[in-house]
Amino acid sequence: MITGLDHIAVAVPDLEKAVKRFLEDFGLTYEGTEDVESAKTSTAFFPLPPTSIELVHPLNGEGPIAKYLEKKGGGLHHLCFRTDDIHADVARLKEKGYQFLADAPSPGAHDCLVIFIHPKSCDGVLIELSQPPAGH
Amino acid sequence: MITGLDHIAVAVPDLEKAVKRFLEDFGLTYEGTEDVESAKTSTAFFPLPPTSIELVHPLNGEGPIAKYLEKKGGGLHHLCFRTDDIHADVARLKEKGYQFLADAPSPGAHDCLVIFIHPKSCDGVLIELSQPPAGH
Repeated sequence: MITGLDHIAVAVPDLEKAVKRFLEDFGLTYEGTEDVESAKTSTAFFPLPPTSIELVHPLNGEGPIAKYLEKKGGGLHHLCFRTDDIHADVARLKEKGYQFLADAPSPGAHDCLVIFIHPKSCDGVLIELSQPPAGH
Repeated sequence: MITGLDHIAVAVPDLEKAVKRFLEDFGLTYEGTEDVESAKTSTAFFPLPPTSIELVHPLNGEGPIAKYLEKKGGGLHHLCFRTDDIHADVARLKEKGYQFLADAPSPGAHDCLVIFIHPKSCDGVLIELSQPPAGH
């Protein structure tokens, strides 16, 4: 079951400049940056409990965010729903005809299990599902 | 001062279908739809306290969302920060070089005062500032 909005991801062409903008100009709390090898991103976390804003930038200039930035320069990239049972939600949504960008959930940032719904299944919106590790 | 994430707005080509998706498929709470004449939108509200997801659709087929849908079909449209003093924040951000889509804040949904920062001032991200009416 989807239990909340985990985060909104913003693709940024210059991570340092964007961190400064969200920290100093918008006054949000900056929690730090994590390299997420599986997603090929450097991700800067701005908690706004119980959700957060994540600034995503290509790790080593590669991966899907690099392609997105090439096309669009920057922008709102995806939103992510938290789920308490990602496998059940994937099965349920597949049953309804939703397509996914992977066959099964895989490890993402903060040791969550994640999977993306194909944007063509959601009128052009990229939506991630994320299940936190047990105990979180 | 920016005090939180007020909402994320998603532009949708078919409001009824999208409401059904977020309500039935994603299991969010649907609070109702409001016609926002000032923004030329029909807006469906899905509270995820203290934030919310708003599905925005052109009112009478006109306005900025109609143009956005013509170009992109649908997608994440903007995010909105709540502020406790919109005039002070606009002055402060103008001082830093930010450009806005209007000269001054004006009434938006739910009787808030709102203004949009130009996306070229935020690496392609459209950001709204919103101050709730006194007492909210």
